[in-house]
Amino acid sequence: MNDKPISRYPVPRVEDLPQDIRDRILAVQEKSGFVPNVFLALAHRPDEFRAFFAYHDALMEKEGGLTKAEREMIVVVSSAANECHYCVVAHGAILRVRAKNPLIADQIAINYRKADVTSRQRIMLDFAMKVALRSQDISDADFETLRAAGFTDEDIWDIGAIAAFFGLSNRMANVVNMRPNDEFYLLGRLPRS
Amino acid sequence: MNDKPISRYPVPRVEDLPQDIRDRILAVQEKSGFVPNVFLALAHRPDEFRAFFAYHDALMEKEGGLTKAEREMIVVVSSAANECHYCVVAHGAILRVRAKNPLIADQIAINYRKADVTSRQRIMLDFAMKVALRSQDISDADFETLRAAGFTDEDIWDIGAIAAFFGLSNRMANVVNMRPNDEFYLLGRLPRS
Amino acid sequence: MNDKPISRYPVPRVEDLPQDIRDRILAVQEKSGFVPNVFLALAHRPDEFRAFFAYHDALMEKEGGLTKAEREMIVVVSSAANECHYCVVAHGAILRVRAKNPLIADQIAINYRKADVTSRQRIMLDFAMKVALRSQDISDADFETLRAAGFTDEDIWDIGAIAAFFGLSNRMANVVNMRPNDEFYLLGRLPRS
Amino acid sequence: MNDKPISRYPVPRVEDLPQDIRDRILAVQEKSGFVPNVFLALAHRPDEFRAFFAYHDALMEKEGGLTKAEREMIVVVSSAANECHYCVVAHGAILRVRAKNPLIADQIAINYRKADVTSRQRIMLDFAMKVALRSQDISDADFETLRAAGFTDEDIWDIGAIAAFFGLSNRMANVVNMRPNDEFYLLGRLPRS
Amino acid sequence: MNDKPISRYPVPRVEDLPQDIRDRILAVQEKSGFVPNVFLALAHRPDEFRAFFAYHDALMEKEGGLTKAEREMIVVVSSAANECHYCVVAHGAILRVRAKNPLIADQIAINYRKADVTSRQRIMLDFAMKVALRSQDISDADFETLRAAGFTDEDIWDIGAIAAFFGLSNRMANVVNMRPNDEFYLLGRLPRS
Amino acid sequence: MNDKPISRYPVPRVEDLPQDIRDRILAVQEKSGFVPNVFLALAHRPDEFRAFFAYHDALMEKEGGLTKAEREMIVVVSSAANECHYCVVAHGAILRVRAKNPLIADQIAINYRKADVTSRQRIMLDFAMKVALRSQDISDADFETLRAAGFTDEDIWDIGAIAAFFGLSNRMANVVNMRPNDEFYLLGRLPRS
Repeated sequence: MNDKPISRYPVPRVEDLPQDIRDRILAVQEKSGFVPNVFLALAHRPDEFRAFFAYHDALMEKEGGLTKAEREMIVVVSSAANECHYCVVAHGAILRVRAKNPLIADQIAINYRKADVTSRQRIMLDFAMKVALRSQDISDADFETLRAAGFTDEDIWDIGAIAAFFGLSNRMANVVNMRPNDEFYLLGRLPRS
Repeated sequence: MNDKPISRYPVPRVEDLPQDIRDRILAVQEKSGFVPNVFLALAHRPDEFRAFFAYHDALMEKEGGLTKAEREMIVVVSSAANECHYCVVAHGAILRVRAKNPLIADQIAINYRKADVTSRQRIMLDFAMKVALRSQDISDADFETLRAAGFTDEDIWDIGAIAAFFGLSNRMANVVNMRPNDEFYLLGRLPRS
Repeated sequence: MNDKPISRYPVPRVEDLPQDIRDRILAVQEKSGFVPNVFLALAHRPDEFRAFFAYHDALMEKEGGLTKAEREMIVVVSSAANECHYCVVAHGAILRVRAKNPLIADQIAINYRKADVTSRQRIMLDFAMKVALRSQDISDADFETLRAAGFTDEDIWDIGAIAAFFGLSNRMANVVNMRPNDEFYLLGRLPRS
Repeated sequence: MNDKPISRYPVPRVEDLPQDIRDRILAVQEKSGFVPNVFLALAHRPDEFRAFFAYHDALMEKEGGLTKAEREMIVVVSSAANECHYCVVAHGAILRVRAKNPLIADQIAINYRKADVTSRQRIMLDFAMKVALRSQDISDADFETLRAAGFTDEDIWDIGAIAAFFGLSNRMANVVNMRPNDEFYLLGRLPRS
Repeated sequence: MNDKPISRYPVPRVEDLPQDIRDRILAVQEKSGFVPNVFLALAHRPDEFRAFFAYHDALMEKEGGLTKAEREMIVVVSSAANECHYCVVAHGAILRVRAKNPLIADQIAINYRKADVTSRQRIMLDFAMKVALRSQDISDADFETLRAAGFTDEDIWDIGAIAAFFGLSNRMANVVNMRPNDEFYLLGRLPRS
Repeated sequence: MNDKPISRYPVPRVEDLPQDIRDRILAVQEKSGFVPNVFLALAHRPDEFRAFFAYHDALMEKEGGLTKAEREMIVVVSSAANECHYCVVAHGAILRVRAKNPLIADQIAINYRKADVTSRQRIMLDFAMKVALRSQDISDADFETLRAAGFTDEDIWDIGAIAAFFGLSNRMANVVNMRPNDEFYLLGRLPRS
């Protein structure tokens, strides 16, 4: 299955890419053992690649009130709502790894209301879904619900911004027909030996 | 009306911002005569601000097969679909200016199927709406329709990426409850003297 | 742009119309300075024209608990929900004039939840939207909400009837592809000198 | 069941009504053997009553390319789409009588795609449903489909206007919670002796 | 009208059917005076026929907290939601007979919120509609609402299972294009002499 | 996680069940190595249990034009549409095993349009989704499309009946809040040694 195209668009060879992009790709390859296809597919447009990953890192790598697993929960629930093949598979894997839970990603992708999450996380995911699907209806009442569950206003910005950023990411993946690496499907499903 | 809050979040004073952000804001103020509120509202998070505008410029300022007015048409139609108060008002103004047409922005925001656009632009807007609302359904057939209307694959990426980026932008504006500057409402409606 | 057709159907010449319709049209022309296209497009069917404007006047011109600006708010929000090009542009203009507010019409058309309206008006617009989009769900609870906001039962009939009447009007405009006069776009946007 | 209220609003006594309205009501009573509740419920607002029935008659009583049974088909399909209790029951009865077919009204109300109608009538009903539910999408292609099925442009106006008018009527009935007369349920179901 | 096909699929002759199916059909014919078409249409697949009616009887014929009329209310409301021509007509008839109420079936099929049901039955029908249309959203809160209205957990299973079973039945009827017997339309509408 | 309830309803002990149900459960346990929770959850109602599995076997175990993997594809796509946690996880596992493909179930659950299926299977899944979501719209044109792809009318019944049966199954699982066994998540993901 590895010969299936990973994008409708030409995929550049790593060695032909600008140095900074090449460095980023080699770093992720060293860390993960493979290059996630999103890096190759988006490298078709270097300026957009740089902005995309700068935005991604600003939301996903920074410190803050949400754990990294919780941020990935937001990614998975939003991406499932947008039926994004790449993002559900790839970030589902990252979520399993970060949460050290082999079941949670499938649960959230299928029906997050039935997932093994805390009630605080459930409220977080409800808001992420509202951002993804009906952001025009967001009101003060949503902020009050989130604050009552212990989220700060900065946490709420994080939830909203992650759901919004993957609104972009899901749409780009759907436009270019991005295919996830086969490696992602099994990642985080087996106990670490 | 100018004392209405422009964001649910604290809005930094320009003089307190990092130099690069301050420079960007002063430049836009010099060019436009006022500071569009999106610059102030997003400056609450400098790293996200930088990524946001880098992405914006990569899509909206570069050369390419779409005119700048056509890019703004895509912004307006997507933002209307997401009922984004800020983006429809602000980019509606920019569209009127770029297209030198005082009617086009309202037409596209209300019902783009009735707008005074070419049949090629209509196909462009149909695709932008699909990206905004049902990106999971995008298929080869959409690309064939767009190519038959004269769009290159790079143009199609542009249409998709602009609609996707404003999917992010609209959601952020809805989360923070961003308010457009009063100046935008009238911009581009009067004949230049 | 003035040579664009204003209807899919033949538009009668004013001088060929029955006397009562001609009188009505000349009166509105004298008052407004131009003949709004709805008068010309609907004059294709004189009996329906008469019933349409009799209904319109019974709702929009009579005394009652709603201000004339509030009635136009209901028209604009319903017409935006139905994506009616003619009604949003034409009644948006009338709303700006009646409310003496150059921003309110665009705000309500884009996302009425973000508009500069009172909380009482917000409840009025919520009900108008329910009439426009899900009238089968209307229940006693809606009446209680409206009464609690200070609306009498006669006011509620007015809100419902205006939203219902423009449900008809929007559909007719969409069927005949009615085009608003260019004059409407700018009306009420400039300070009266 | 006859003591159930027929409207949320006060229902005037016939003898208290203006003469023209009283005459209309007595005429329908003489013809039908009972007073359909819509006449009583809408008589609460005499001016709106007059405009409503003038509009109704202009569409439903005039000559034209659609048979009276076909016009009632349009009413039933639109009213079912809007889940209007009064209009489906009352106009279902009229349809059975006019079509001399005891099955057709239920078929159209439940799923018009399965009803015993001609292919020409099916196209008529498809358009009526589009007017009722997505009038913003109406385009030249709809007119071409209808013309190809033998409808004139005046017939198309009739279809559109009937669906639009009952869009108003359904919403008013839902707002005032209009209850159909028990007599309607059985009307037209039995063979005339 | 009796010569219209009752299914897209071949309809077996009763005498060619396996003995148990033939017996069932003859029994229903003896009781009802005619063979409801669902028996003939589904007999095309004897194993599925047997499972279907075993399931049906397990839910509809057993003792329990819901009256037989209430079970038919659930069938009618679910079938109307799925626009199932066969089930609304056939079970509408059974509902009229079981409830001894000639109006109730049409009321529930058109807009169950306006039907002459008790508030307990209204809550039952709200849940049936949620099972039919948004079962993924069912939560503990729904169970609490139903319990507060006096339903036991076994009653709730019954409501859910009936709505779920007719979710299957409606879909099969729509797939095979099942046509109800003409006899059903009038059944239960006339006073028993 | 194994102590989480598998149903909102009491789960009988296997030894307390009627002999035929106990036999069925022990047989599946012997074959699979564990008892899928659907057997335990539905055993709360023995008659419904028997009908459910008789129906299931009539569709899923019989010979026919669809492979067993294809039938599971239909189950997964319908269950994903209904957001049924149990069915997507359990039947996703069965699909991976039957198709000997560790990726296919996730692909179909997330966005079947992007899955690695043949064009014939894509048409099969399109129809299954129509049965699941809009069965009222099924028409002769759907049958023609399926026949043109090589499906017999009996195959089409199979596709429709499987999607309809899991319409029931998904709703029951959502009503009782059925939880899949942890074993399913990993099943079929690893190469057989």
